Amino acid sequence: MSTEAHGVLAPTVVFASDYGLADPYVGLCHLAIARVGAALGARIDVVDLCHVAPAFDVGANAALLRDALPWIPAGSVVLAVVDPGVGTDRAGVVVRVDGSVAATPADGADTPGVAPLYLVGPDNGLLTAAGGEHVRRAWRIQEVARPSPAAGGPAPATFDGRDVFAPMAARLAVDADAALDGLEPMGVDELVAHRLPAATAHPGRVETQVVRVDGFGNVLLSALGSAIAQAGWQRGQTVSVDTAQGVWHATVAVAFAELGQGRLGLLADAFGRLQLAIDRGDASQRLGLGVGSRLAVATAEA
Amino acid sequence: MSTEAHGVLAPTVVFASDYGLADPYVGLCHLAIARVGAALGARIDVVDLCHVAPAFDVGANAALLRDALPWIPAGSVVLAVVDPGVGTDRAGVVVRVDGSVAATPADGADTPGVAPLYLVGPDNGLLTAAGGEHVRRAWRIQEVARPSPAAGGPAPATFDGRDVFAPMAARLAVDADAALDGLEPMGVDELVAHRLPAATAHPGRVETQVVRVDGFGNVLLSALGSAIAQAGWQRGQTVSVDTAQGVWHATVAVAFAELGQGRLGLLADAFGRLQLAIDRGDASQRLGLGVGSRLAVATAEA
Amino acid sequence: MSTEAHGVLAPTVVFASDYGLADPYVGLCHLAIARVGAALGARIDVVDLCHVAPAFDVGANAALLRDALPWIPAGSVVLAVVDPGVGTDRAGVVVRVDGSVAATPADGADTPGVAPLYLVGPDNGLLTAAGGEHVRRAWRIQEVARPSPAAGGPAPATFDGRDVFAPMAARLAVDADAALDGLEPMGVDELVAHRLPAATAHPGRVETQVVRVDGFGNVLLSALGSAIAQAGWQRGQTVSVDTAQGVWHATVAVAFAELGQGRLGLLADAFGRLQLAIDRGDASQRLGLGVGSRLAVATAEA
Repeated sequence: MSTEAHGVLAPTVVFASDYGLADPYVGLCHLAIARVGAALGARIDVVDLCHVAPAFDVGANAALLRDALPWIPAGSVVLAVVDPGVGTDRAGVVVRVDGSVAATPADGADTPGVAPLYLVGPDNGLLTAAGGEHVRRAWRIQEVARPSPAAGGPAPATFDGRDVFAPMAARLAVDADAALDGLEPMGVDELVAHRLPAATAHPGRVETQVVRVDGFGNVLLSALGSAIAQAGWQRGQTVSVDTAQGVWHATVAVAFAELGQGRLGLLADAFGRLQLAIDRGDASQRLGLGVGSRLAVATAEA
Repeated sequence: MSTEAHGVLAPTVVFASDYGLADPYVGLCHLAIARVGAALGARIDVVDLCHVAPAFDVGANAALLRDALPWIPAGSVVLAVVDPGVGTDRAGVVVRVDGSVAATPADGADTPGVAPLYLVGPDNGLLTAAGGEHVRRAWRIQEVARPSPAAGGPAPATFDGRDVFAPMAARLAVDADAALDGLEPMGVDELVAHRLPAATAHPGRVETQVVRVDGFGNVLLSALGSAIAQAGWQRGQTVSVDTAQGVWHATVAVAFAELGQGRLGLLADAFGRLQLAIDRGDASQRLGLGVGSRLAVATAEA
Repeated sequence: MSTEAHGVLAPTVVFASDYGLADPYVGLCHLAIARVGAALGARIDVVDLCHVAPAFDVGANAALLRDALPWIPAGSVVLAVVDPGVGTDRAGVVVRVDGSVAATPADGADTPGVAPLYLVGPDNGLLTAAGGEHVRRAWRIQEVARPSPAAGGPAPATFDGRDVFAPMAARLAVDADAALDGLEPMGVDELVAHRLPAATAHPGRVETQVVRVDGFGNVLLSALGSAIAQAGWQRGQTVSVDTAQGVWHATVAVAFAELGQGRLGLLADAFGRLQLAIDRGDASQRLGLGVGSRLAVATAEA
């Protein structure tokens, strides 16, 4: 067993990007973190959250990050790189969310003391949408010196994940105060804003949009799971789902398997979000829904 | 270099699932493990075995796990989540396999002392099929308190990987006795049984089924590699492969490259299993074979 | 925080292969490393560089590794397994590259002291192409004892990643001198040679080949980024790209986003290589280019 103190998380970077897995981009960011860690005398754990979300899509990736955030241990640093504007004058930023973002695990007593979470990435709305109302402070990353390739030639301007954001995340994970020391504080309201789509829930009716489709084809909605109670629906009840393509019937459920294979259900998902899912099937495909699709769920007529 | 004692594996969780890589599901289980580790003062290594095996397919995933098990270092904990019944009343279980499951690495002297392996997951046959005759003891995971999402709403019932199994695996990795203390022992024969398909090997003939197709299209069979000797076949000999789609000729081989590119071979694979493979090609596709397909291999007539 | 010394990298293996992610092959190599580490009293970090590059393609994988090498921290061991000849009499080798391969990160002062890098893998040209002129020494891995599967049957000959190369990489990461002690030194010129394709750059014209296509469809060329200066081209200038399929116009650029969505650009990439890319699009597909395609870039006529 290691020599870590009880209740203290080892320096940890949680890494999300749209780099994909067909290239060494993710691994090279890991190595940039290891290199900075070695220089600072620390061994930094890197946990890959996801690298295969839709490329260049700030909205879908922000939804993914928003849903994951409450489950990321306090004291971690989130490295989030979806960055179609890399190399332009878009800024790099660090934002801080406070402990109000945290979910309460069942074994709450196990949770390390609440501390802020830092998020690092481009200032393009990804971090503000992910952190939402929990973002409390922000810093601008000054223009950094660029690395020099061994082969000579110009300094690269297209891989700030490796060259700027991963080293910054590593420094924050080891010693946040020291890492923030060289950065320029900025107002939270100066950050590029991106809000996830809204939703309304009233007795008998929920209006919402698709914010993400997961790898199983489950359709994640902008409405929260609590919308089921607000609409007054009971487990097992039938509701209608009205989309641009047509109208479907779905069963209000708690677990996929209670639907029966191939049947459509409406449930509160594992992130507290409202979800349309088919037991062992692909709801996105069957209903023709993608990110941004609008739909209304209503009490089905008898 | 770290301060670990010689011959002692750091707390290690080996993680297999059907979660895929297009979502944060795998990463969130890693974080649940890190959180419990921090609370217990331990740094837990997590090794991803595979997360892209066919979703919801207990059989194919059990074969994958069965083949990997002998190569997992003693003292590890296996977290195995293929769980179409999540949220229903299917139980969660811990099973223990003894050291008889282990392969002997070439450098046997390097092997840490033999200790039991624990496996954690849903009680749906995955663990019994994977552990086979090596399963010695079992415990039922009592109904756990569910976590509370930050956003409010109902406690999630669809992500027991994050909420139940990963935390349990983390506790087992740090201190198995303490982790088992709160669990209810059950009989091994009370576990849901799932056996991998059988095979017969006689002089001149092997009857078998496909248990898994790997990412290269290699066809893994229920028969063991020792079936080649039982059938009396020699390296370089031609055999016939009789399937529902037709009859093919294959060459008995030890390595892929001795076949020649595009040629079909029958060999003992790296897990001790009988395998049909095409040198730098896709045997599954060419022969039209999938999980569950039956076939017979026989001495080819002159 | 851990107890590592400042400026010293923890034992680190950087792992690249064509094993893919649909099987436990990568995970089992991680476990072989953990097992050897435990026996030697060391905790070894494993960073996955990439496992999804084209299977069996030594050239494309060598280009990937060549581009990554300058960014791998000194003191790491590279485990590189693309091995269609596994089980034949092709040798396994260790090669050493010296510090001249390293890029200079922007924060150069952070870099751990320059030390050699070791690379381990099959002697099929992968390592010589990746290390290029930086390869200084080489050792042949003697025929090793093969492991014994738990199920009996013949010793496996098809998974040297797990059985030979990963354990060797682990030993090198913990104590390189001890690991090399049992190996047979060989001449660098005895290694199987594989050179990446050449390129020529003159004022107004660059002739080159495609060495790799990344997951976004960006086309990586054999020419270096410095070819832009050698050709005398300026940022924003239009050049013609002449391929077997036709002629396209491209804009010389520094960042993707300055092209405008869907527009073709020519730029120096993050590895110091010349690259054809489409802003948020797939250049490989639009231009019909794959590994090995030849093309010429020339000053566009007015």
